[in-house]
Amino acid sequence: MASVQDISVSAVINLISALVFLLAFAIARLQPINDRVYFPKWYLKGIRASPRSSGSFVNKFVNLDLRTYIRFLNWMPAALKMPEQELIGHAGLDSAVYIRIYLLGLKIFFPITLLSFAVLVPVNWTSGETLDHIEDLTFSNIDKLSISNIPSGSKRFWAHVVMAYVYTFWTLYILYKEYKKISTMRLDFLASEKRRPDQFTVLVRNVPPDPDESVSKHVEHFFRVNHSDHYLTQQVVYNANKLDKLVEKKKSNHNWLTYYQTKYERDPEKKQKIKTGFWGLCGKSVDAIDYYTTEIEKLTKEEAEEREKVKSDPNAIVSAAFVSFNSRWGAAVCAQTQQSRNSTIWLTEWAPEPRDVYWDNLSIPYIQLSVRRLLMAVALFFLTFFFMIPIGFVQAFASIDGIRKVLPFLKPLIDMDFVKSFVQGFLPGIVLKIFLILLPMILMIMSKIEGFTSLSSLDRRSAAKYHLFVIVNVFFGSIITGAAFEQLDRFLHQSPTEIPKTIGVTLPMKATFFITFIMVDGWAGIAAEILRLVPLIMFHIKNTFLVKTEHDREEAMDPGSLNFSVSEPRLQLYFLLGLVYSVVTPILLPFIIIFFAFSYMVFRHQIINVYDQKYESGASFWPDVNRRILIGLVISHLLLIGLLSTKDASQSTPLLIVLTVLTIWFHKFCKGRFESVFVKFPLQDAVVKDTVERTTEPNFNLKEYLQDAYLHPVLKGVDFEVSKELDDEEKNSLVATKRTSRRSSKTVSNGTSEDQKTVSEIQLVF
Amino acid sequence: MASVQDISVSAVINLISALVFLLAFAIARLQPINDRVYFPKWYLKGIRASPRSSGSFVNKFVNLDLRTYIRFLNWMPAALKMPEQELIGHAGLDSAVYIRIYLLGLKIFFPITLLSFAVLVPVNWTSGETLDHIEDLTFSNIDKLSISNIPSGSKRFWAHVVMAYVYTFWTLYILYKEYKKISTMRLDFLASEKRRPDQFTVLVRNVPPDPDESVSKHVEHFFRVNHSDHYLTQQVVYNANKLDKLVEKKKSNHNWLTYYQTKYERDPEKKQKIKTGFWGLCGKSVDAIDYYTTEIEKLTKEEAEEREKVKSDPNAIVSAAFVSFNSRWGAAVCAQTQQSRNSTIWLTEWAPEPRDVYWDNLSIPYIQLSVRRLLMAVALFFLTFFFMIPIGFVQAFASIDGIRKVLPFLKPLIDMDFVKSFVQGFLPGIVLKIFLILLPMILMIMSKIEGFTSLSSLDRRSAAKYHLFVIVNVFFGSIITGAAFEQLDRFLHQSPTEIPKTIGVTLPMKATFFITFIMVDGWAGIAAEILRLVPLIMFHIKNTFLVKTEHDREEAMDPGSLNFSVSEPRLQLYFLLGLVYSVVTPILLPFIIIFFAFSYMVFRHQIINVYDQKYESGASFWPDVNRRILIGLVISHLLLIGLLSTKDASQSTPLLIVLTVLTIWFHKFCKGRFESVFVKFPLQDAVVKDTVERTTEPNFNLKEYLQDAYLHPVLKGVDFEVSKELDDEEKNSLVATKRTSRRSSKTVSNGTSEDQKTVSEIQLVF
Repeated sequence: MASVQDISVSAVINLISALVFLLAFAIARLQPINDRVYFPKWYLKGIRASPRSSGSFVNKFVNLDLRTYIRFLNWMPAALKMPEQELIGHAGLDSAVYIRIYLLGLKIFFPITLLSFAVLVPVNWTSGETLDHIEDLTFSNIDKLSISNIPSGSKRFWAHVVMAYVYTFWTLYILYKEYKKISTMRLDFLASEKRRPDQFTVLVRNVPPDPDESVSKHVEHFFRVNHSDHYLTQQVVYNANKLDKLVEKKKSNHNWLTYYQTKYERDPEKKQKIKTGFWGLCGKSVDAIDYYTTEIEKLTKEEAEEREKVKSDPNAIVSAAFVSFNSRWGAAVCAQTQQSRNSTIWLTEWAPEPRDVYWDNLSIPYIQLSVRRLLMAVALFFLTFFFMIPIGFVQAFASIDGIRKVLPFLKPLIDMDFVKSFVQGFLPGIVLKIFLILLPMILMIMSKIEGFTSLSSLDRRSAAKYHLFVIVNVFFGSIITGAAFEQLDRFLHQSPTEIPKTIGVTLPMKATFFITFIMVDGWAGIAAEILRLVPLIMFHIKNTFLVKTEHDREEAMDPGSLNFSVSEPRLQLYFLLGLVYSVVTPILLPFIIIFFAFSYMVFRHQIINVYDQKYESGASFWPDVNRRILIGLVISHLLLIGLLSTKDASQSTPLLIVLTVLTIWFHKFCKGRFESVFVKFPLQDAVVKDTVERTTEPNFNLKEYLQDAYLHPVLKGVDFEVSKELDDEEKNSLVATKRTSRRSSKTVSNGTSEDQKTVSEIQLVF
Repeated sequence: MASVQDISVSAVINLISALVFLLAFAIARLQPINDRVYFPKWYLKGIRASPRSSGSFVNKFVNLDLRTYIRFLNWMPAALKMPEQELIGHAGLDSAVYIRIYLLGLKIFFPITLLSFAVLVPVNWTSGETLDHIEDLTFSNIDKLSISNIPSGSKRFWAHVVMAYVYTFWTLYILYKEYKKISTMRLDFLASEKRRPDQFTVLVRNVPPDPDESVSKHVEHFFRVNHSDHYLTQQVVYNANKLDKLVEKKKSNHNWLTYYQTKYERDPEKKQKIKTGFWGLCGKSVDAIDYYTTEIEKLTKEEAEEREKVKSDPNAIVSAAFVSFNSRWGAAVCAQTQQSRNSTIWLTEWAPEPRDVYWDNLSIPYIQLSVRRLLMAVALFFLTFFFMIPIGFVQAFASIDGIRKVLPFLKPLIDMDFVKSFVQGFLPGIVLKIFLILLPMILMIMSKIEGFTSLSSLDRRSAAKYHLFVIVNVFFGSIITGAAFEQLDRFLHQSPTEIPKTIGVTLPMKATFFITFIMVDGWAGIAAEILRLVPLIMFHIKNTFLVKTEHDREEAMDPGSLNFSVSEPRLQLYFLLGLVYSVVTPILLPFIIIFFAFSYMVFRHQIINVYDQKYESGASFWPDVNRRILIGLVISHLLLIGLLSTKDASQSTPLLIVLTVLTIWFHKFCKGRFESVFVKFPLQDAVVKDTVERTTEPNFNLKEYLQDAYLHPVLKGVDFEVSKELDDEEKNSLVATKRTSRRSSKTVSNGTSEDQKTVSEIQLVF
């Protein structure tokens, strides 16, 4: 157990490293050459086109104005300055609501911390009978402030029970207020939004095959009959996966071509040769520029053929379609109702916005979907509880003995002392770390297999899986030693009343561990986030080797985005720690508060200046956030029950069970009260918006507006111009403007179609 | 443990008692005087008006035709003769589907029984090593056929595991087929139904208060705006609870008046006196006929006043309304969508049919509803696990010592030997029995408190509660001795792997108990059902004292109905027993098969000839039935895992867990595939029906048809004739016919409005 001194040392170290990151950031961000790394958002919005600096050539790369360095923390107030409404307009509702989670943490834990220090800390401190006498090395001063300091069966535990009540009610109150606020924000956001294709569109999946009609005709006839007054148009979904790959390949070849051309321009003497074999390692040596030029030509031809094939082949059309209606009311009705008596065909749901669509998953039949979910649920269970087994295998393989056996020719190398200690000391850790880095990707692949149809839902599902993993392996894994499957085995052989006791009793002892964890992962980790070291390096590498035009520079920017599927579950760990330790070891709370406050500031800065979200889901993740905090609350109650039972205070169990029941009820209540706001679109709001629009723009040609909104991104571009030109006759000027701007903004973020890119780039620059 | 001989004796006794019941029924049903007890359905349908007999006066009461007695079981083939389609038309889909549950039991268990006797019984029997040597009294021949006969760690357990797989897959296959069949039956039923008010109507609850408008206007404006093309009319809900009570009281007084008038006519000499005080036990003595005549006059006046008040007082209108649309499509859309951004107001759901409405619960605000459900969930938990505590209390009170203490003046009486032995031997059992008889009522009251708005949903909720009670207290309570709360306590202190073992190991020993239970409760109980002893006696009492007119005789009939909330959960116990013992003690299966076959016949007879359902929900209970059988299947897996673990065959555990996971997945799959059929109304079907109707009856006045469909039953009648007459001008002949027949059939089953009754009675007779 660490003492107060140890904690202080750790705090100082982590504060210093955080400060170093912040200083590095403060200096790096002022250099014009890094402008596109630290302010990409403004470039993408078209507000900034080049670094804000005037003067000499050098000034274009390095900031020589020393005055700007003095106020090196001035990004902090700047980050807080933008009002929330403007922030929503600037960064979208998803981002604005995401940072409210940190604010929510502050709202919950600030009063709890004050109360804990006013009530629980004195109660624990003055009850110094137990630990003073024991004189055990495993106890430290921190424990004198925690519940461990209170002797078994003491009346003082009532203070903790009362406080558990106060904290729970406070948390529920704040959660209710926040849920209400965010559902209002979402509805206002949806109401204030400009016309968007997804407002009028419904995604129809599992279109049954019809021997006499094409999918397109079948969909049209079905909706013309069943939504006769409201049906407007439909857009079938093409299976453009192969085309997508070709386009990707062409783009990659394009990059290599640019790379060699740049090299050639710098040093025209040297011939650029490459080998055509496996990974450029073997095969015939050819001229690089020639090679890539012919490759690109070949791919262009292939692409054109594939494009033609997709357009003409009826088999390229999958059994899904985007059906559009002439009013928001019609779309809302169709999305919320059941179409066919067989509830596994003609499935309708509100369409995700075009850039949010995950195209690969649109055509999975119901039974297959159901089997996939079963398999993934089983896989998730094994991944969560048994992930240590394959890792242990790899670790054994990556040990000295393992290497000696399998790769005997490396024997002389690994017998060297330095290599030996490296293999022994670091390799197992690195294997684990690599797995943990790969984990979110594995979870995302699992979610994709489960067949969700939008990027936002994929993110939410991955987050749910990751949350389970974090709770089992990080939280419980840290409290109880042993791998997850050993815990599982142990718990299967313990009674339900015994499990909380086992965990509860070790809880206070782990407080210092978690304090250190918060400082390392929370404080220093967040400070590292703002420095953006990886994108910084990547940008400069690309800038050196690939960038020739302004468009290339635009391409080289990697604004990144809030990675909801990873950051939210991690964040939930802090809520869980705060709720669990608020009664047990209140000294942990200030660390959490600093984490929330600091993160809030950092992420507010990031979403204003850096991140560019791939999609906008209108904060539809909030029900998950709310639910997970409540899960944390329930865990905190159960562990407190266990802890108090081991302290001869089990008469408090019924009182605490009441709290658990209340929390679960609150979850149900909130679900009924608010959740539909995040799933459905109320008809009242739809009617209001329809009416306003019909009055202000009576002649708007909606059909033409929606015509190609839901075309697969790779199919957009040159060959769609044909149909556009055909429509031109009915087009009025207003539509044209709208459409151009919409399309350009969409393509920037989609970034898959090369040709389209160029068009929109020109539109942006001019 | 009972031996084969004991079981045989018990079987003979129960068979004889069943036979006695059947004989009594066969004789009683042939007497014309009992015709209205055993064939009320035909009277209610208007097909039969008097007993089918011609001849002498005596023949009107007693059947003297001896030939009819010979074929005393000929009701059985008669019951099976009616084809299912005709049965649906005759008794409704609810009843027709309900008896299919028994058929489902046969379909599941008949092949399982054959297989068990072909495979498992030989496997168990030939493995006679264990029990032959032990020579213990607790083992009997029955055990030689069960899994107990196999020694620990034997390879023969593989047969049981394989059979568990075969049985599970067979059960799931049959369940899937049945679910599919029933969802098709429901949709066909809904599609083939005649025009009914609920097809066009949506129940709107939680109408928000509006300071400027009445509820009626507010509802109309809201739906005119948000469903502009489809809104037709609306009907507010009056709070007529007080009026309802007055009408009930008047009816009861009417009965007493009739009773005394009949007595007076028989014996005009004797003055009929009654006392006006408490329960007619004290107070002033007055002439009975005069007293009731004035009472009825008083009540009639009060009723008229209350009727006026309800009609004029705006506070008598509750915040709910029935909103009707001009097409089924419009109603289906409104029922399935969210109206307001606040998801706790303007809640819409598909309206139950008029006689299915539970009027008292229409105006509960959301938050109150939520709190009520929480409280009832807690209450259900305590009722299920702790119900023995208050009963033990009452039993202690009803013991010899208790009576001596509290009622000392009874001391001489209870010291008599006969009374003493009665108190000691029977009173505790009677107390328990009374509670068990009251239980369904308690559960129904709890469901009413939960705020469900239709009788069918109340029945379904009560059934769910009763099912929990049956599983915990009857099934587990019989297997493990001790009250439920003691079990609960024990399980809280055992590990999750230990619990199935504890139960599993006692499972084979309880087989004989359950066999006896099936014979007593299943065989003899069902035979008693067909005799209808209570309605038989009640009818003859009423017939003697109250019946003066044909209408009174109609009133005296008590056709009863399938009491879904009680009979379905009891039925589920047989499925559970069958599934659990199919692998463990196959000898139990034939008893279950006889139960299902016999019940199927009895209930088919009853729904054809006797029962008159209070409402028609279109088999919306099927998802519950399916889920509960799956719960039984999961319980059977878990207990088998436990049993095999105690037999040193725990290596089979993972294999059986796979079955459990598959079963749970199957539940989810079925839910997604079929459940919406029972909740939503597909738009495609709505459109088809709308179109057909619009073509065949283009001039039908729907508004007029729906005008008073959803009026509280007590408000229907005299004073509503005004509005009817006003409508008369627009009425065409077709409507009139429809309406009359509809109303009359409805009122008969509702049976609350006296005046209306008379009208419809006349319509029926003439």
